[in-house]
Amino acid sequence: MQGIRVCGRQADRLNSRGFGRRTGKCILLSYEEALYLAEREMIDMPFEDVFREASRTRDFDVRFFVYRDLRSRGYVISVKDGHFHARKSYSMDFYPMSDLSPFDFDFFSAVEKPAAIAVVDGDGDVTYYMLSDADPRGERFERPAANNMIQAGNRVFILDDSVDFGTFGKNEGKFAHLSVYEARYLAPGIDIDVDEEIYEVYRDLRDRGLIVKSGFKYGTHFRVYERSIEEHSRYLVHVVPRREEMQRVSRAVRVAHGVRKELLLAKQVRGELRYLSISWIRP
Amino acid sequence: MQGIRVCGRQADRLNSRGFGRRTGKCILLSYEEALYLAEREMIDMPFEDVFREASRTRDFDVRFFVYRDLRSRGYVISVKDGHFHARKSYSMDFYPMSDLSPFDFDFFSAVEKPAAIAVVDGDGDVTYYMLSDADPRGERFERPAANNMIQAGNRVFILDDSVDFGTFGKNEGKFAHLSVYEARYLAPGIDIDVDEEIYEVYRDLRDRGLIVKSGFKYGTHFRVYERSIEEHSRYLVHVVPRREEMQRVSRAVRVAHGVRKELLLAKQVRGELRYLSISWIRP
Repeated sequence: MQGIRVCGRQADRLNSRGFGRRTGKCILLSYEEALYLAEREMIDMPFEDVFREASRTRDFDVRFFVYRDLRSRGYVISVKDGHFHARKSYSMDFYPMSDLSPFDFDFFSAVEKPAAIAVVDGDGDVTYYMLSDADPRGERFERPAANNMIQAGNRVFILDDSVDFGTFGKNEGKFAHLSVYEARYLAPGIDIDVDEEIYEVYRDLRDRGLIVKSGFKYGTHFRVYERSIEEHSRYLVHVVPRREEMQRVSRAVRVAHGVRKELLLAKQVRGELRYLSISWIRP
Repeated sequence: MQGIRVCGRQADRLNSRGFGRRTGKCILLSYEEALYLAEREMIDMPFEDVFREASRTRDFDVRFFVYRDLRSRGYVISVKDGHFHARKSYSMDFYPMSDLSPFDFDFFSAVEKPAAIAVVDGDGDVTYYMLSDADPRGERFERPAANNMIQAGNRVFILDDSVDFGTFGKNEGKFAHLSVYEARYLAPGIDIDVDEEIYEVYRDLRDRGLIVKSGFKYGTHFRVYERSIEEHSRYLVHVVPRREEMQRVSRAVRVAHGVRKELLLAKQVRGELRYLSISWIRP
């Protein structure tokens, strides 16, 4: 680890307050720690000297802003390679990143939870998102038969006023209609062009007993109910590529937060469908 | 135009209620009109016959759903090639589209306003977005000089506690920092890697006297103030490619609606930067 070495009584004092990593009579301060302390004149080094050395290291700017912000919120922080382990009344790993970096689903599905990402924007402000692994389950296992379907555009029609597809599609009287995902689920043999990655998530959610409807109004793929569409939908589910623009994730979180729903990001990771719950927090 | 021909007294009656296009003693009903009328048994043709013929035409499903929805809201509709001209107490052009189709900025920046897009989602529900051309103007024309900048990550630092950049960046005491867009604007010669399309929008907004800050918390590129950052920001500005996923536009509109800001989509159209204001409406 790179950093700034401090020895003697100053080292003891700082170490007792949670700064640095001890090596004999000295401690090694990470650049985030050293800058934080230099800014507050808690070490005998000019801020500018520490800054010039630190600024050459990778991701320095976001690491410094997040470290500083978490310290100001009362956390004691152990500096790790790619993240901060922060303790207050509880402890959690915080992953600093830039708003211009992509959100790496596979990486975050594998990290130890509880974990949060700390995103530094162009103004230097930090926004925090809590991550947890999700395993959504519903109570509606149904798969009514569908026949005589006529595809037109991005949906399928059934010209039979007696059909009852339960929580699938909509019966409008003289006709009923299903989305392409619903049609494919109810008639797996049907020749419909659907996005396979998105369909796989639809199928999995339905297989879990959940009721799955369009999430378009919320700008996501699906809105999901646990028991009945008479209740409010609990989840918004969005299918993401491995590396999704963090800005788009932020937008989806903001929508979900505004309507008090839980946002689940969904993606295949090594052949297994994974759900990550992500929400806005003020740590 | 394709459609269903109806003649005689039935034609007169329907035409007086705003249906069909007259050709001598007959009228030609568009498929949307014919289906709407057949569904309500207002013409002597079985719904299924009209449906089978209509369903072979392009974009039939979204055109039918939007036509039907607007009629149910009391509009009288003239069916045009790519859109509906709808009249109630006012008149407006409605462009039907599927939630899976992209939003074509260049096309919509050129259409006559007032115009709205009518998006049909997988559930068959229609969501309406009003479009207007925007020409945002602010009152803060400033361009303070910036020197001795140190780039680190996605921002620029200035180690001088006396600098005052006005509405640009942030002075944190021992240092100040600017976003890459701000740095490029204040020191055009600086060698900073920025997304040129996004920077051009930043530059234009600043040249219009607007104060431009990060829109990351809202999942857009910029939040924009007219006079002072002490007030609430008026706009969210998002830079889009020519064909943006409609779902992403929907998500941005939803966020802006929730925080009562005006969403502006921005893009170069034939060398000129254009802004389209887009908002959620219930027509």
